[in-house]
Amino acid sequence: MRYPNGKFPALQHSDAELPNRMRAEDFLTLIQDKQTSAAGRGMSLEEDVNESNAYYVAHEIASVHKKPTPVQIVKVDYPSRSSAVIREAYFRQPSTTDYNGVFEGRYLDFEAKETRNKTSLPLNNFHAHQINHMRLVLKQKGIAFAIIRFILHDETYVLDAAHIIRFWEEAACGGRKSIPYSYIQKHGYLIPEGFRPRLDYLSVIKRHYF
Amino acid sequence: MRYPNGKFPALQHSDAELPNRMRAEDFLTLIQDKQTSAAGRGMSLEEDVNESNAYYVAHEIASVHKKPTPVQIVKVDYPSRSSAVIREAYFRQPSTTDYNGVFEGRYLDFEAKETRNKTSLPLNNFHAHQINHMRLVLKQKGIAFAIIRFILHDETYVLDAAHIIRFWEEAACGGRKSIPYSYIQKHGYLIPEGFRPRLDYLSVIKRHYF
Repeated sequence: MRYPNGKFPALQHSDAELPNRMRAEDFLTLIQDKQTSAAGRGMSLEEDVNESNAYYVAHEIASVHKKPTPVQIVKVDYPSRSSAVIREAYFRQPSTTDYNGVFEGRYLDFEAKETRNKTSLPLNNFHAHQINHMRLVLKQKGIAFAIIRFILHDETYVLDAAHIIRFWEEAACGGRKSIPYSYIQKHGYLIPEGFRPRLDYLSVIKRHYF
Repeated sequence: MRYPNGKFPALQHSDAELPNRMRAEDFLTLIQDKQTSAAGRGMSLEEDVNESNAYYVAHEIASVHKKPTPVQIVKVDYPSRSSAVIREAYFRQPSTTDYNGVFEGRYLDFEAKETRNKTSLPLNNFHAHQINHMRLVLKQKGIAFAIIRFILHDETYVLDAAHIIRFWEEAACGGRKSIPYSYIQKHGYLIPEGFRPRLDYLSVIKRHYF
């Protein structure tokens, strides 16, 4: 198999075929959020969730994984038989939530979101297709939720997707564009933080969904 | 936020930090397989599965998605505010299977594999961590399986992961390195092919697992 100029022909796309690119602005916001959070607490929520998932998998308590970041690959070089290097690719908007898996026979599906806002979680933390995805998961009798951290309160909650969907629908009809902290305190479940796993969200899921 | 020379500092990694790169050889085999298959049948198994999943999601029959290809991002350029371009990245070995989701309250988890071999499916279609992953999914009471297509027989089967794990373990102790076609005919479930969805594997799952 030979590819002239080292390009991989089957993955060549024109710009028009890449409708779901993440905008650089969104990407920078994402990175900035991570850095701010890391500066403030030492560990980001995503790191805590990933570490807890690794603990659950290692102890065979559950199989939950973060999905890889979706990337549209345009050009691949192979400088040698021992490596393939992606030389042009774009971030895509994910069509589902970030995490899913199975826990004692139940399907789990969730997003992890943290905010430095003290009074609410802005709904622009979610995308329309993620809301649609959560709706279908609930319809299929999966457990769909968000893990929400209020950094300045140092509190992390599980909030069922049904609440998020309701706020989303109300916002579409002119309602508020965020979920109040007080609402999440009342309708969410506070996750205990510990050493192993650092964020034992499955203990909360087990208590409230089983 | 300014990054000198347009590089994204937080994602800079040295070679030593990238242990899970997919080798170029594996990548080329993957591509060659896809091309061979596409030449022979018009549509690859992966395309059939993806199209069927899109049908299931659109009709709210199930929520099943292919996970994005895992990529280790090393360098990102932002030529403008409207685009972020990945300029250096590497394929990583997936740590789970390719597909998962929820169907009427049950967790589904599977790989899709096709072969031009007439008499067996070689076990090198799977990786050790995928076998471990399927083991844990079964332990957590998920439905784990492979969708296996024998291209030259024009037949596609669902085979429960328990069979694959057994053959894998026997191979580790000196047993054969493939699953015979005759075994899959006997212990697998033939998937009917149709128009919509093209590969109705959920009808088979429903009949045999519910």
